[in-house]
Amino acid sequence: MGLTINDILAAKERISGYTVCTPLLRLTNLDKYLGCEVFAKAECMQITGSFKLRGAMNKILSLTEEELKHGIVAASSGNHGKAVAYAAKKMGIKATIVLPYTVAKIKEDTIRSYGAEIIKCDVNERFEAAEKLCRERNATLVPPFNDETVMAGQGTAGLEIMEQCPGLDTVIVPVSGGGLIGGVASAIKAVSPQTKVFGAEPASLPRYSASLQAGKPVTVDRKATIADALVTNIPGTVCFPYVASNTDAFADVDEEYILKGMKLLLLEGKLLCEPSSGISLGAVLQGLIPVKATDKVCFFISGGSVAFNQLEILDNITI
Amino acid sequence: MGLTINDILAAKERISGYTVCTPLLRLTNLDKYLGCEVFAKAECMQITGSFKLRGAMNKILSLTEEELKHGIVAASSGNHGKAVAYAAKKMGIKATIVLPYTVAKIKEDTIRSYGAEIIKCDVNERFEAAEKLCRERNATLVPPFNDETVMAGQGTAGLEIMEQCPGLDTVIVPVSGGGLIGGVASAIKAVSPQTKVFGAEPASLPRYSASLQAGKPVTVDRKATIADALVTNIPGTVCFPYVASNTDAFADVDEEYILKGMKLLLLEGKLLCEPSSGISLGAVLQGLIPVKATDKVCFFISGGSVAFNQLEILDNITI
Repeated sequence: MGLTINDILAAKERISGYTVCTPLLRLTNLDKYLGCEVFAKAECMQITGSFKLRGAMNKILSLTEEELKHGIVAASSGNHGKAVAYAAKKMGIKATIVLPYTVAKIKEDTIRSYGAEIIKCDVNERFEAAEKLCRERNATLVPPFNDETVMAGQGTAGLEIMEQCPGLDTVIVPVSGGGLIGGVASAIKAVSPQTKVFGAEPASLPRYSASLQAGKPVTVDRKATIADALVTNIPGTVCFPYVASNTDAFADVDEEYILKGMKLLLLEGKLLCEPSSGISLGAVLQGLIPVKATDKVCFFISGGSVAFNQLEILDNITI
Repeated sequence: MGLTINDILAAKERISGYTVCTPLLRLTNLDKYLGCEVFAKAECMQITGSFKLRGAMNKILSLTEEELKHGIVAASSGNHGKAVAYAAKKMGIKATIVLPYTVAKIKEDTIRSYGAEIIKCDVNERFEAAEKLCRERNATLVPPFNDETVMAGQGTAGLEIMEQCPGLDTVIVPVSGGGLIGGVASAIKAVSPQTKVFGAEPASLPRYSASLQAGKPVTVDRKATIADALVTNIPGTVCFPYVASNTDAFADVDEEYILKGMKLLLLEGKLLCEPSSGISLGAVLQGLIPVKATDKVCFFISGGSVAFNQLEILDNITI
């Protein structure tokens, strides 16, 4: 565990010209629904639409001239792929994004629009394909989460939150492999130890709840979830100890409540997020995280990648 | 024309405990679509979901004890009705809202939830009915726009905008009767005369363009528009001179561009607004308001009253 608050502070300095300090919104109209003073960290308004740019940018800005010359590689059709492609374009270096044959056209088009090279392979072979590419080209892999430099980048959002509202009682973070919460929780506990940090993961993929109970990363069954950015079925081995040390508890949120959270944020909070971000509101709506009317609670809105026709998933959801 | 900047400053002080200072959001992801540095004044996040609470609250807080005792009346099924009902509840006084028989159930339910009395009548008789009620009960009518105290309340949003970003080049405001832009433009020109203020109104109801050309309020044909909060067909006689003195130009925006603006704000800006607010983005998308890449442009997002099933109006709109 080599990641310290100084790494996160250095990351903040490093990426500041490439990312935006997203607003921490005080959404008073949600208070009565969630039973607390509601704040939302709007990373859906981050460049490329999610927090992922923070980690990707910190990783790339930490490479040597020599490494930059050989380009970077990532395997992701989602927010991480977009972030890496954008970051490479900004830096004037080459990015290759490995996508599954089954990738949605809109995602492929977005990544291509940033000028990245796209290589396709079978969905189960994409990480292997990315590693092979790196070996062949002497290129650098930018991992989506299991990396301390990436985590330090994500942690900058935690620093911002506590600067924007120093008195926050609770921060609730969507979790997949643990790169975001690993960084954010490390930052928050360093500057404000009394602030509680909760993780929210799909009940169908409770990899952190299971692993924290076991005291080590364990693999859970690969099951479906509407939260398509939260599908990892084992904690990152690098992330796990930071998460174990710096979080207060985890909520395993049902699919219905993930969507309730997304719909509530849209209709009453007036913010559009992806289903994976609705989970932080869903955790409270489902009664899994204790909050009081006087608590200042920050819901981390990790991203806003949602197509218009995808909104039909909310059709029959009541809030 | 008795409304001065001092009235707006006094209104700000008066209503500050009852309204929120909504965020002025820097939406960098919209810059490439709109060709300028995009800011959004998010009144969709105001209590009751629109700027209307500012004017209603200022009006009610300006009444005498005696007047308050006899209660208030408004004729509006939309944002103004909600605001007046909420304001009365906060003040512990009686509100009666006159609604047409044809009012949508969801709107009636919202107004009723604030504890207001509801009286229904034919849609064409609602203003007459409201005035009759006031006479019978010695109650006070809270007008939706054509009133200097209401305008002063709306103007507080203009003061906030210029405090939040003093260097704004341009502010674009949705317009119906002229209460919002009358107040906002008066405030902005008083504190920052070089900032341009544009009005945006539906091309199907160009009451301000026509009236400014005629030099006096003129009535335009009553036509349909998707912007259901912007349906007035003649400028308010009280508002008109303030608008004429303090705005730079008007854009008459086509229905298609109103919806394009709403969809763009939702999908790329991640903010949900009502169609009537999409019009400010639509004005620039349609090329009706000149902007440069280095211009700081504030799009006034007047409200967020939109039901989930209403989003289908965006189905076939391209951005």
